[in-house]
Amino acid sequence: MGFLARSILVISTLLIAVLYQKYRHLTTPGSVPTIELQEYWGAGDAEKYTELRDVVPFELNYEEKVIDTLKEKLANFPNLPQPLEGAAFQYGFNAHRLREIVDYWTSDYLKRWTERQSYLNQYPQFKTQIQGLEIHFLHVKPKNVRNPKRILPLLMLHGWPGSVREFYEIVPKLTTRSDEKEYVFEVIVPSLPGYGFSEGTVKQGLSPAKIAVIMRNLMARLGFKKYYVHGGDWGAIVGNLIATFFQSEVLGFHSTMCTNSAPMATVKTIIGSVAPKFIVGEEYVSHYYPLTEKFKLMLTETGYMHIQATKPDTIGTALTGNPIGLAAYILEKFSTWTNPAFRDLPDGGLEKYFTLDTLLDNIMIYYLTDSITTSQRLYSEAFNVRELTKDYDRIPAHIPTACAKFRYELFQQTDWALQDHFRNIIQSNHYDNGGHFVAIQFPDILYTDIVQFVNRLYRREDQY
Amino acid sequence: MGFLARSILVISTLLIAVLYQKYRHLTTPGSVPTIELQEYWGAGDAEKYTELRDVVPFELNYEEKVIDTLKEKLANFPNLPQPLEGAAFQYGFNAHRLREIVDYWTSDYLKRWTERQSYLNQYPQFKTQIQGLEIHFLHVKPKNVRNPKRILPLLMLHGWPGSVREFYEIVPKLTTRSDEKEYVFEVIVPSLPGYGFSEGTVKQGLSPAKIAVIMRNLMARLGFKKYYVHGGDWGAIVGNLIATFFQSEVLGFHSTMCTNSAPMATVKTIIGSVAPKFIVGEEYVSHYYPLTEKFKLMLTETGYMHIQATKPDTIGTALTGNPIGLAAYILEKFSTWTNPAFRDLPDGGLEKYFTLDTLLDNIMIYYLTDSITTSQRLYSEAFNVRELTKDYDRIPAHIPTACAKFRYELFQQTDWALQDHFRNIIQSNHYDNGGHFVAIQFPDILYTDIVQFVNRLYRREDQY
Repeated sequence: MGFLARSILVISTLLIAVLYQKYRHLTTPGSVPTIELQEYWGAGDAEKYTELRDVVPFELNYEEKVIDTLKEKLANFPNLPQPLEGAAFQYGFNAHRLREIVDYWTSDYLKRWTERQSYLNQYPQFKTQIQGLEIHFLHVKPKNVRNPKRILPLLMLHGWPGSVREFYEIVPKLTTRSDEKEYVFEVIVPSLPGYGFSEGTVKQGLSPAKIAVIMRNLMARLGFKKYYVHGGDWGAIVGNLIATFFQSEVLGFHSTMCTNSAPMATVKTIIGSVAPKFIVGEEYVSHYYPLTEKFKLMLTETGYMHIQATKPDTIGTALTGNPIGLAAYILEKFSTWTNPAFRDLPDGGLEKYFTLDTLLDNIMIYYLTDSITTSQRLYSEAFNVRELTKDYDRIPAHIPTACAKFRYELFQQTDWALQDHFRNIIQSNHYDNGGHFVAIQFPDILYTDIVQFVNRLYRREDQY
Repeated sequence: MGFLARSILVISTLLIAVLYQKYRHLTTPGSVPTIELQEYWGAGDAEKYTELRDVVPFELNYEEKVIDTLKEKLANFPNLPQPLEGAAFQYGFNAHRLREIVDYWTSDYLKRWTERQSYLNQYPQFKTQIQGLEIHFLHVKPKNVRNPKRILPLLMLHGWPGSVREFYEIVPKLTTRSDEKEYVFEVIVPSLPGYGFSEGTVKQGLSPAKIAVIMRNLMARLGFKKYYVHGGDWGAIVGNLIATFFQSEVLGFHSTMCTNSAPMATVKTIIGSVAPKFIVGEEYVSHYYPLTEKFKLMLTETGYMHIQATKPDTIGTALTGNPIGLAAYILEKFSTWTNPAFRDLPDGGLEKYFTLDTLLDNIMIYYLTDSITTSQRLYSEAFNVRELTKDYDRIPAHIPTACAKFRYELFQQTDWALQDHFRNIIQSNHYDNGGHFVAIQFPDILYTDIVQFVNRLYRREDQY
């Protein structure tokens, strides 16, 4: 064997060793870290803090004056340049469409504010102090159900730029008796810290993992030792972390955005691109591939994420107390994330699946609470080296998991990529429509998907 | 020779062939495309357009009412959350600092608006129609210079989020006689289309390459057949394109942000990271390397670019008619881009090198002209597949070039990476301080750098 061949043999052997090392590293599971349950997130000194454990009823009750100020602001429509000739939503929110929405907001929606406020107050709402922060939540109990074994607690977690409003359509379906389920849900819908009526922190580092603890403590405060969790967007990330950290408490995790951020999942996604149909049913390939197209879409749609992860206080300043800017910024997401093809529609397709009232309810929650900056800070607390290197998704989550996969959800992973983290995916349904805000868009489908999942578990077990 | 060795030989040969092919592709120069000189960018139909070739004097002259409205807006400081405990500018613009600046704006700057307006009107300004757009520019002629051979025309191009205001400090130095130069400059400082007092287009596709044609046509309109070009930020990109497309017209190109976006330049930057000191003098290595640190800084500081390149109309809507948001958004750049370490200063280091008057002059130009959206659209017209694949930087630019390299300019390339495009870099000075807005920060240093460059050419040639 000549020198060349020997050299190559040595190099190949080394390469194989390195790759094997990498592979072992990539596939080594993590373990649940010690969770600090009482970390303090309020202002000032933790020593001086005594938690008020009371659960206090809450209602929206905005004075006329607040609404009048909003009307004045809406009357000052900015001097926006014309949309470029031939452009609908490809350059962002269309100025003509924004004008229409602002007109409706002023001349219709706000005239019925009392009615809209009652609508938002239709479910019992409360606040309680957790780890120094006032946390707001809906707590909807089923009526006329005597057997406690038939009542299943369900924690429902919203995302950005959503709010508790995302679940208003689905809540009554879940909390009411019906033929398809032998049980009913008792639903807890919190506002994430810094979102809407939940207080934001003034301390650095309130990452999704830390929020998971707060949400778990809220459930504990309400007396729930075992419960189901549903989440989308940040709610999916936080829900995933609750299901990872508190595996003895979570009965099942249901999500519209199952994610596994461990590096091995990315490796699998890339390997899968060679022959996608061996990994997912041929009819679902378009949910995940072609990668170049998905990557391009991600790149086009994540500018907001990039600026929020790096300069949340700057972009937050531009949007606080600025209802028109806020509406454009948030509603752009309700258009494109429902279907990227809506970028080509002059009206952004916003009313194809949503009413303007629903969309404005959600904007009102951000506007009235001045919470856009604190909501955006979550991105910077999540996307930083310190957080990302914790690699929580390497920890196997053994709780029963359901992934509902809607066609236009921005980011999706195959079960093959998910299963290194979610070790017990017992349901994975694909839908050929539906976007990021599916709880509002298709509450019936989401409801059916949740019930199908819980039916699998409820029949088998009797643990609650 | 065994099968393994033979296989490896075949594969290696193939690999070398592919790499050589790639290398040839990477190093094949492009050629100047046919430039359409009269493309129409105005509203509606080009057929109906007759260009008004008049050059009309222009002055800022804002009514009291406009300033009163601004004062009202500034009086409504938004209900921003506190900066996170211990945070200065790391999460974006600090809310306390913003409050101070807004106070100064209202109680000091705007009380002297007449004076500030006169300051902005100190140089002769004009407008003229080019390709359907009203273009604004300063035109400052030297006084008491008889010999036309001693007058050198200089086109100075600003960037984002700057304006013509960037050059107010340097203009008198350039246009006045002095010992260090045998000539004086006649300076033309245009507002880029869609920036400040220059009209924005309503048509899609007004890329930097198209703006280069408009700027060149402005020089032609003013009777300049040969001229020097200086630019920073977008001004550097546009100036580079003028120097590339119109090589018989540009006498020399001077830039504070020389860039070569051809793929080979990136390859060279990566190769250079192995042993940087062989490529640049050891004392200048920190301008370019370590790459991971530079990449991290780029990632942290380009959220604005990502959102502006993809959703300019959305972010523009949030900032139009919103002076406080606009100030935070723009001044964040004057802090971090002057020195990234300023993120750790509670005041953002803004007044270390700039006066608040200077900074507010620039904000006023964006606010008064409602031009933030049109300024941001330039990013989407530049960063898209159609534009980027044109790869103009593969075209060799043979014009004499000077690259002034300031330590804190966000993006810098070594001369080794630049020289495949800029074939005639005759000056390349490194400075151990100085940021993105160096024309305001260090006008004397920039002036000296420009004069040093032109001295090299003026002595040698007598072409003008």
